[in-house]
Amino acid sequence: MSRQRATAFVPGHVTAFFSAHPHDRPAAAGSRGAGVTLTDGVAVTVSAAAGDDGARLLDGDPDAIGAVDDVLDALSVPAVDVAVETDLPIGSGFGVSGAAALGAALAANRAFDCGRSENELVRLAHEAEVDRGTGLGDVVAQARGGVPIRLEPGAPGIGALDGIPADARIEYVTFGELSTESVLGGDTTALSAAGATALDRLRADPRLPTMMTAARGFARSADLLVPEVEAAVEAVEAAGGEAAMAMLGRTVFALGTGLSDAGYDPDACRIHPAGARLVDGEAVDDESQRSA
Amino acid sequence: MSRQRATAFVPGHVTAFFSAHPHDRPAAAGSRGAGVTLTDGVAVTVSAAAGDDGARLLDGDPDAIGAVDDVLDALSVPAVDVAVETDLPIGSGFGVSGAAALGAALAANRAFDCGRSENELVRLAHEAEVDRGTGLGDVVAQARGGVPIRLEPGAPGIGALDGIPADARIEYVTFGELSTESVLGGDTTALSAAGATALDRLRADPRLPTMMTAARGFARSADLLVPEVEAAVEAVEAAGGEAAMAMLGRTVFALGTGLSDAGYDPDACRIHPAGARLVDGEAVDDESQRSA
Repeated sequence: MSRQRATAFVPGHVTAFFSAHPHDRPAAAGSRGAGVTLTDGVAVTVSAAAGDDGARLLDGDPDAIGAVDDVLDALSVPAVDVAVETDLPIGSGFGVSGAAALGAALAANRAFDCGRSENELVRLAHEAEVDRGTGLGDVVAQARGGVPIRLEPGAPGIGALDGIPADARIEYVTFGELSTESVLGGDTTALSAAGATALDRLRADPRLPTMMTAARGFARSADLLVPEVEAAVEAVEAAGGEAAMAMLGRTVFALGTGLSDAGYDPDACRIHPAGARLVDGEAVDDESQRSA
Repeated sequence: MSRQRATAFVPGHVTAFFSAHPHDRPAAAGSRGAGVTLTDGVAVTVSAAAGDDGARLLDGDPDAIGAVDDVLDALSVPAVDVAVETDLPIGSGFGVSGAAALGAALAANRAFDCGRSENELVRLAHEAEVDRGTGLGDVVAQARGGVPIRLEPGAPGIGALDGIPADARIEYVTFGELSTESVLGGDTTALSAAGATALDRLRADPRLPTMMTAARGFARSADLLVPEVEAAVEAVEAAGGEAAMAMLGRTVFALGTGLSDAGYDPDACRIHPAGARLVDGEAVDDESQRSA
């Protein structure tokens, strides 16, 4: 049954370290690495277009995200309005573009009864992100939730994931944007070697503090640290906490109250237990299931 | 850091249809099929043993679940008390034994800081279930949440999953126990052929109503229907709803208000959005993450 309107929530995702694995086929391209998904995330509402052309809103202002349009094209839905809402900073390493693409896929599939499976929807969003050069591993991580370890790059059926079984409060501060495209578009050889080392460390000891240590080593080896980020990471460590740089953003994230203890005024959330999902109201949903 | 006590929640899982795939290696054995995970589930608390021998409680009464002990042995934890709590009927097709095994793995890993990854913990629980003959596909489904489709049998890294992107209210009634061991221990050739047909139907159209139709066809072809179950499924259909038999139990589950509408007095819950997870208190958790 088609309801012409649906909303999906997709957790934010902070990558702690990664290696880049380009491929001619976007579904087979991706990254290895690890990170945390966040209860702070992105809500995407897709509905039949009110006007002739579909509107694109980001936090209430007109703004299009390329990967969202690519996903909608791939699903061959009619003209739609898309509203993306998030409290997360944009362009700062929280995977907002991937979340918007995945949320659009889930919501459009539901609103227009496209009949795709979850793996198919994740693949479409992953391919759109890779094609746009805005991310390599956020979508598959955001679909999973928790603390995803990307063992093998690529969309579902090609890549492989594991996870660290952990729950934790996560704090973060952002000092501004950093272009994912500019880093991923350059030479990633040294970066990927550092990412492979970090992944080996984590697989040998899949615990949160080990992920944070491996992430700090990665950021130094890959020469990605910016001064404000480096200072904040060091301040948290000096206060006895665990922090690292979010890849790729001028952002620091910390376990527990690490940034607060170091004197920063961070945002705070938790590790997301579930991963991306539809968030339609129960009453509407129950009714639709009866007659579906 | 070891805290000596942790609790995990694992959703119940009702299998709609399946094919059985035995294998010499328990990690490679399993089932193909589909089902729904439930917000009604199993809470497992593992703690350092208060006495010389560990206690085993099921809803407050002394009762051991073999797969739980196998998982604890595999993790080499010291003597522990295990308390399994569930509102679900036992032995009725809700995957309680698998949930107990997976919950014990997650909780013991946390309580005693075993340092295993999520895939490793799911594999241990899956192997224990297969070894005990009490289930083939519940554990991997319960680890994932949602509406899991088991594309390939086996533990993480061997098997493969997809899912139907759906949320729904689920109602269920149970008329008594049915032995999983007796069915799985017999000739499963006809059953598995029917399961393969049902899976083909669902993969071609991954929607909830299609899963229910495929499940009814499976139960008939595999000759698993018992009279009370058949009567309830037919009553729900006559009232315009969607119901099927839970594999393997004398249990009927329905979408939305299907059983209520047919005059039954069912329990009700929803599809679980997340899958198995630790459910420790936030305060305790935050503290442990700081010093971890």
